[in-house]
Amino acid sequence: MNELTSALAAALPDGRVLTDPDVVDSYARDRTFVPPGRPLGVVLARSRDDVVATMRWATEHRVPVVPRGAGTGLAGGATAVDGCVVLSLARMTAIRELSPQDEIAVVEPGVITADLDRAAREHGLMYAPDPSSYEISTIGGNLATNAGGLRCVKYGVTRDSTLGLEVVLADGRVLNTGRRTMKGVAGYDLTGLFVGSEGTLGVITAATVRLRRAPGELATIAAEFTSLRDAAAAVSAIVAAGCRPSMLELMDRTTLQAIDDWKNIGLEPSTRAMLIAQAEGSADEMAALCGAASFVAVSSTPEEAAELIGVRRLAYHAKERLGQCLVEDVCVPRSVLPEMITAIEEAAARHGVLIATVAHAGDGNVHPVFIFDRGLAEPPEEVWAAADEVFRAALDLGGTLTGEHGVGLLKKRWLGLETGPVAAELHQGIKQVFDPLNILNPGKAI
Amino acid sequence: MNELTSALAAALPDGRVLTDPDVVDSYARDRTFVPPGRPLGVVLARSRDDVVATMRWATEHRVPVVPRGAGTGLAGGATAVDGCVVLSLARMTAIRELSPQDEIAVVEPGVITADLDRAAREHGLMYAPDPSSYEISTIGGNLATNAGGLRCVKYGVTRDSTLGLEVVLADGRVLNTGRRTMKGVAGYDLTGLFVGSEGTLGVITAATVRLRRAPGELATIAAEFTSLRDAAAAVSAIVAAGCRPSMLELMDRTTLQAIDDWKNIGLEPSTRAMLIAQAEGSADEMAALCGAASFVAVSSTPEEAAELIGVRRLAYHAKERLGQCLVEDVCVPRSVLPEMITAIEEAAARHGVLIATVAHAGDGNVHPVFIFDRGLAEPPEEVWAAADEVFRAALDLGGTLTGEHGVGLLKKRWLGLETGPVAAELHQGIKQVFDPLNILNPGKAI
Repeated sequence: MNELTSALAAALPDGRVLTDPDVVDSYARDRTFVPPGRPLGVVLARSRDDVVATMRWATEHRVPVVPRGAGTGLAGGATAVDGCVVLSLARMTAIRELSPQDEIAVVEPGVITADLDRAAREHGLMYAPDPSSYEISTIGGNLATNAGGLRCVKYGVTRDSTLGLEVVLADGRVLNTGRRTMKGVAGYDLTGLFVGSEGTLGVITAATVRLRRAPGELATIAAEFTSLRDAAAAVSAIVAAGCRPSMLELMDRTTLQAIDDWKNIGLEPSTRAMLIAQAEGSADEMAALCGAASFVAVSSTPEEAAELIGVRRLAYHAKERLGQCLVEDVCVPRSVLPEMITAIEEAAARHGVLIATVAHAGDGNVHPVFIFDRGLAEPPEEVWAAADEVFRAALDLGGTLTGEHGVGLLKKRWLGLETGPVAAELHQGIKQVFDPLNILNPGKAI
Repeated sequence: MNELTSALAAALPDGRVLTDPDVVDSYARDRTFVPPGRPLGVVLARSRDDVVATMRWATEHRVPVVPRGAGTGLAGGATAVDGCVVLSLARMTAIRELSPQDEIAVVEPGVITADLDRAAREHGLMYAPDPSSYEISTIGGNLATNAGGLRCVKYGVTRDSTLGLEVVLADGRVLNTGRRTMKGVAGYDLTGLFVGSEGTLGVITAATVRLRRAPGELATIAAEFTSLRDAAAAVSAIVAAGCRPSMLELMDRTTLQAIDDWKNIGLEPSTRAMLIAQAEGSADEMAALCGAASFVAVSSTPEEAAELIGVRRLAYHAKERLGQCLVEDVCVPRSVLPEMITAIEEAAARHGVLIATVAHAGDGNVHPVFIFDRGLAEPPEEVWAAADEVFRAALDLGGTLTGEHGVGLLKKRWLGLETGPVAAELHQGIKQVFDPLNILNPGKAI
């Protein structure tokens, strides 16, 4: 330890500060390829007071702090910068309260997303946001990125489930925002402002989240199509019919092939796309709306449903077998989903890049996964060229660069194309109000 | 016109600026009792460009601007200040776009809330937020206050239906926030920040709002109870059973008496409370959950349902027959609804004030209506003393001062009790970023 980190260790209970270079290095990046800086050390916070002490020290010594959950982010939001301290919230794992009557829980940021959901299910409730990483991601990371997931087509994103926050500000002061009630309009929406701000405005040490009644048995179908356009048409038909799906997932041929190569799911040569849909109500109605499908599997038991959805959950790992994956995250109005997918296919062909696409189709949220050589330290030029085309196509179609992953470091160079100079100025102004010394996750998000 | 207003009139198309004192006066207040200041004039904006010209002029001459919709607010958010210009958005009434495929609409702020809902219904969709004033309130006013309503127990408040905004800033620059997509996390949540900010951060000139599939036929019941506690227990039972009501309204005896005196609804002497509930699914199930009710009416046709709900919609006007009404707006966790109502009854008794209460019970959002002498210019001291007790009781119960009406001028003196000094400092900092000259609705909301 040097003088700085010794002062930090002295301000905290024993064992909170790590400075071993190899250990520190393992906390320096998330799941992106952005090369991280070299941190001074890592704080393993176990309480709000640990966070307060860390931020007081950081303010006193002008040390950047990079807050971090489980490091499952896909945009470089938790990438360390040189000379920073990484502040891990992963050990703040208490569910402080869970009230079935009021359908709320008060949770610390290190709670694993799926663990909160399971705790809620014991009372007939659920925690709705379910990013694909929900078995390993933390609530804190979900809040920082305003994470989405498969179910948000029906239940909304993390912000929609967040009622109030306990936040430690840059100077160590504690702020409570929001409320325990379903509604509330006292003052500006600071809660919504912190959610999705990627740790640049404060460190969230607890959240009051909304739980929802868990649905009863769900109808689940998997439909195969010989064209992407037919699959997209089925998406529109299912939504328009009022089925209100809680899951409506699309996978392209490249993705299905990767899964088939790994797990042999018996993929037909003519299949170009698969749609997996889940809703309360009748599977037969959804199946009928997939009129152009070449094959529709309908689950009649929860086990069969889990199997159908399991195929979707394999997608990411199947692609990782093919090489390194840059997972992108554009989102467009649902009506132009076919155009978006076509633009991705064209970019792939033009730049000779392998792109496998899955989509939270009901939201118009498309994840093109750019696959490249395992030997490379970061994505090669042609991947970025193809990604650049995909981003611009999304914006041209009235969409956004990022539906749920966040801006982090990865998408900062495109952000201005979407938000424009006036918003950029306001973002900087807000940042200045909350973090005048620019020590909170500097360089991210805005 | 004086020199100032002449310069304003010259910057705008003919007929936009009113300065006749009587006319101006009629634009100086909303539905609260806060005595207004004297404006210089009124701008009747018909376009975004009118708003831009007004804000440029206001910035140049340092003139306060008080934006205004239909003036149906209940917190003094649109109350004029001395020497201001009232900027009416009520004539910006275009629905610029309505896309059934993407389930969104782009609307100007002067659109009447119920008109947007009706336009959506032509496509099998609805605009969910429905404040009680929705037949006369504007979308712009709803956005400014983050208005709630009867249906938000199921569909959320105005912010939950707002995807993006076109905003004219204090200096006349135009900002587009948010998106047309269901999800998006590019940059800080400026959209959410403007919603509920009561015109203190910018003037909203268009909103991209989310529409939802309109439900099919709804089951509706009205249940009478001989105790408020039994009615509250039925609320909890209906929610816990997963009925997912889209309306769950409670009225106390005083309210019912006022309605009965006016419209003779055959109120039983023993009835202390009525619950009106509406949900997709079975009326019988909801009726069964009102086990302690002395009487349950179940609608079997849409006409009967409209009649049952009509009783609730009469509530406010029935009370206005008794005197002047100060409508308050506390919101508490649903589990402590009986305690909140008891606290209101105690405050009424202690201060000798007539209070009639209705509640969006499913949200824990309680409207105690303080009724006082028609001859008074503003609520007498004992009304404020009782209101003060009600506000403090709500906060003690883990609730908020205002579930949906906003802070305006009316609740500013209590706001600090809820949000605390750190939030107050951040609110001021944010205000300074957006409106450094403090010309946008000065003195409101924060």
